[in-house]
Amino acid sequence: MNIRVPSFRDIAKNFKVVFLDSYGVLKNHKGLIEGVPDTIKFLRDEGIELRVLTNDASRSQQQQADVFDRLGLKDLKVDEIITSGMLAKQFLTHKIREGKIAYLGTDSSAEYILQSGLDHIAVRDIDLDDLDDISAFVFLDDEGFDWNTDIDTTVNFLRRKTVPVIVANSDKYYPVNKNDVSVATGGLAKLCESMLNKKFIHFGKPDTQMFNYAFEHINQEEFKYNKDDILMVGDTLSTDILGGNKFGLKTMLVLSGNTRSDNAELWINSTGIIPDFICESILA
Amino acid sequence: MNIRVPSFRDIAKNFKVVFLDSYGVLKNHKGLIEGVPDTIKFLRDEGIELRVLTNDASRSQQQQADVFDRLGLKDLKVDEIITSGMLAKQFLTHKIREGKIAYLGTDSSAEYILQSGLDHIAVRDIDLDDLDDISAFVFLDDEGFDWNTDIDTTVNFLRRKTVPVIVANSDKYYPVNKNDVSVATGGLAKLCESMLNKKFIHFGKPDTQMFNYAFEHINQEEFKYNKDDILMVGDTLSTDILGGNKFGLKTMLVLSGNTRSDNAELWINSTGIIPDFICESILA
Amino acid sequence: MNIRVPSFRDIAKNFKVVFLDSYGVLKNHKGLIEGVPDTIKFLRDEGIELRVLTNDASRSQQQQADVFDRLGLKDLKVDEIITSGMLAKQFLTHKIREGKIAYLGTDSSAEYILQSGLDHIAVRDIDLDDLDDISAFVFLDDEGFDWNTDIDTTVNFLRRKTVPVIVANSDKYYPVNKNDVSVATGGLAKLCESMLNKKFIHFGKPDTQMFNYAFEHINQEEFKYNKDDILMVGDTLSTDILGGNKFGLKTMLVLSGNTRSDNAELWINSTGIIPDFICESILA
Amino acid sequence: MNIRVPSFRDIAKNFKVVFLDSYGVLKNHKGLIEGVPDTIKFLRDEGIELRVLTNDASRSQQQQADVFDRLGLKDLKVDEIITSGMLAKQFLTHKIREGKIAYLGTDSSAEYILQSGLDHIAVRDIDLDDLDDISAFVFLDDEGFDWNTDIDTTVNFLRRKTVPVIVANSDKYYPVNKNDVSVATGGLAKLCESMLNKKFIHFGKPDTQMFNYAFEHINQEEFKYNKDDILMVGDTLSTDILGGNKFGLKTMLVLSGNTRSDNAELWINSTGIIPDFICESILA
Repeated sequence: MNIRVPSFRDIAKNFKVVFLDSYGVLKNHKGLIEGVPDTIKFLRDEGIELRVLTNDASRSQQQQADVFDRLGLKDLKVDEIITSGMLAKQFLTHKIREGKIAYLGTDSSAEYILQSGLDHIAVRDIDLDDLDDISAFVFLDDEGFDWNTDIDTTVNFLRRKTVPVIVANSDKYYPVNKNDVSVATGGLAKLCESMLNKKFIHFGKPDTQMFNYAFEHINQEEFKYNKDDILMVGDTLSTDILGGNKFGLKTMLVLSGNTRSDNAELWINSTGIIPDFICESILA
Repeated sequence: MNIRVPSFRDIAKNFKVVFLDSYGVLKNHKGLIEGVPDTIKFLRDEGIELRVLTNDASRSQQQQADVFDRLGLKDLKVDEIITSGMLAKQFLTHKIREGKIAYLGTDSSAEYILQSGLDHIAVRDIDLDDLDDISAFVFLDDEGFDWNTDIDTTVNFLRRKTVPVIVANSDKYYPVNKNDVSVATGGLAKLCESMLNKKFIHFGKPDTQMFNYAFEHINQEEFKYNKDDILMVGDTLSTDILGGNKFGLKTMLVLSGNTRSDNAELWINSTGIIPDFICESILA
Repeated sequence: MNIRVPSFRDIAKNFKVVFLDSYGVLKNHKGLIEGVPDTIKFLRDEGIELRVLTNDASRSQQQQADVFDRLGLKDLKVDEIITSGMLAKQFLTHKIREGKIAYLGTDSSAEYILQSGLDHIAVRDIDLDDLDDISAFVFLDDEGFDWNTDIDTTVNFLRRKTVPVIVANSDKYYPVNKNDVSVATGGLAKLCESMLNKKFIHFGKPDTQMFNYAFEHINQEEFKYNKDDILMVGDTLSTDILGGNKFGLKTMLVLSGNTRSDNAELWINSTGIIPDFICESILA
Repeated sequence: MNIRVPSFRDIAKNFKVVFLDSYGVLKNHKGLIEGVPDTIKFLRDEGIELRVLTNDASRSQQQQADVFDRLGLKDLKVDEIITSGMLAKQFLTHKIREGKIAYLGTDSSAEYILQSGLDHIAVRDIDLDDLDDISAFVFLDDEGFDWNTDIDTTVNFLRRKTVPVIVANSDKYYPVNKNDVSVATGGLAKLCESMLNKKFIHFGKPDTQMFNYAFEHINQEEFKYNKDDILMVGDTLSTDILGGNKFGLKTMLVLSGNTRSDNAELWINSTGIIPDFICESILA
């Protein structure tokens, strides 16, 4: 495989749009990756459209943009950020028309996702003997509840009542520092699926729905871009590259996050997920 | 759950578009389901758009239309039929630019899917000691090869060379008569995935990409329909209903195929896949 | 399938040994199942050996016997009770010869299982930067730790150091009342396996090792019983019946626990796990 | 991990019994591994008991011994060879008392496994409309039938009738030369399980039942050996080492077969399956 390239910018110049994963591409556990603002400026100067695609459902677009701003990436626009939470919200708007939506997560994540005119109720407030008015369940975030009690309540609610169950972020874990990870809401959802022997509705990469959302977004005013115009850049084979490939985009694996330089080819061969390009980072 | 409805037509009247699964909705092992032409005529008369969404990659749109014509459904248009093979073809066009495409399936399925200017080569003709020019592999169909030898060749090719692997139809089996089934290409692909410990790229329901393809198709000239305007009708919870739900469509389970009337609710409760409506068939 | 029988006792009389699951056969969420002491007395009077085989690793044999005594089953002997925790203990004794054993569970479960001359350390006391002396990890129980923090510590420990990981009870959940369940240690282990992409060493039914342990136990003084002499009785197809069948025992499914009378045949047909007999309970 | 040792013999001297995998330890695709007869002689001279544990159900003990003899390993005794087929045979003897046993495999494999007084019937001879007298199904071998037709017949038989299904060898594939493999009967069984959504009864390593069979065999006359006296030697982490560890034996990974020297530690870390020793081969 001879797909290593020295410069992200040289490749990016051949595309009209770049989709970027957030964690491992733009930032890491220490904050913004040094040099990223220059690369973003380069893309702006070249007239290349960009979108950030993130499996983070815990924060709204505005909150995500605020975080980037605080970290030093000033000019990312709110609607250049696309989160898996937005897909969950879209689903709820189209499919759930009445009743309350129960959720596992923080109250603030509930507020931004569950604005569909429907009431919502935290798992800790569920009365297992009075479930009549609950019409859906959402795994929103790994914080905002007590793991010692609320996972059991979730499982028992779903044993008693069959409702649509949405997982707003299908990642099983997320990094918290250079070495360590924390169980993410997708991991909890998987535990509950395995106990209930059911499959929930998962949103987020590698599902192509997120790529399609971004694709429609860049073409919303007029149909300007087709798939061949877009480069997807990410640090994770099983989400960014698999999903980008399946949607028909050219893909670049960067080695500034989950995938290390010395085992990139090994992982590509053992998974069969093949990026079109491999590059150290988006800095050069 | 009080979602049983007596009449498909009464529900369909509230939508501008109906997506229909083929096997179990329009036809079964005996041929066309009696009364289907009347229902199609009803949809035409009401001005309701329709598309047939099928996980059958063995035949082109034209061949599928010819079969419906022979069975007695005369006025289905070629481009009203959307197959998982079309998605595989789209992927190959965008992502594979050079080399030969190896395939497991009939030569005729290869001809219609692999028209991208690239050569193709049947598995039986692969020389395992000379793989340099093969750049992708496609599971096309469960016929057209010798199972006794060509599955082994497929596995050994994929052990020796890492290339993108596409599964044009992810169904594990298909019905051949009232009682019996036959292993489909998706089942073979799963066997090979399990031996290689790799995940291939699967196309077809329940993946939302197929629904999105149909959605773009009805909106291609001008943006006329949104998701709330569409009803997805199918006989299988795990493909038609799961995929339709996830894409944000209203869904109807019909009991004229895979799912029997007396265990529909049981399967809904045990899988957690919930249609918006259940109806005996599309006839009434 | 014509395997329903009216009387446990009539069947049991044809065997020299009866293996009994605990929860769902002898007791339920309300306590001892009424009439069980009479059945145990019947087995004693008939000279039939009995053993209780339970996937409960949280209590020692003595503690289990004490619980039965308090519930009103007075004459169960300590060494008639065989727990999955005993298998975990046996493994640790044979395989781990030095270092500390880290554990997730109560301190009392740690005390009875980890008596092999080795030190043990609770997950909450693990220092992720000083792991040199930890040589194994055990999932013991679902209580005795803080789920909000200690699951993450477990995963990060196992990311940093490769040691044998033992799951003392592979059940994913256990019943807490008529309707509800609680996540068991096997469910947590499965979550961690899925995050780490590793397989741990699980003990407990349906694994045949537990049946073999019981088999050796009844034959320890002299070889008196062969497999044809033994009837395994349980309420769960996927543990009691599957394991008993695989070990070569005759098996009886009772309907006093997990499996309800009205769907027993349905579950048998859909799982393919077939008991030799089905009986309402062990009371008659 | 500092478990590499230069000499198998130096380690083996500390044990009273050695269990050996066959393929990758004693022989490979070219025949007997050169030097193996000397090592077997060494074990005999040291008074160390040996047993060969193989997941090969296609040949009887006598046939296996004949093959070793022809390859040049003259003095292996018939009852020193233990196959997964013997476990399948034991199961059928204990559990199936009437009716015919249907099988997928060669007629010769059927003859040696199915000698329980019951008739047997090849899949090709099954009449799907007359299944009354078939009482069990066995996956015996990957040869002796037509894959193009008999897999479908197997699946449809198992859709129509619920009977115990036994897999005499759970390996998914076996090596046919230095590079290539062939689908084994365990792979076919997995395909059928996935289509039927059922779990069959699998025999062979890593299941501990095979180790227990060997353990009972060496202790059959008098109880001479306990688990600490036994070393299990194999070339495959997921079968030989996992099973040996779980049964409580000391284990040695040899690098003369499936696992290569340069990635042994990598595979150990990524699977979490840890042998007690790693050695180049059993030759030194």
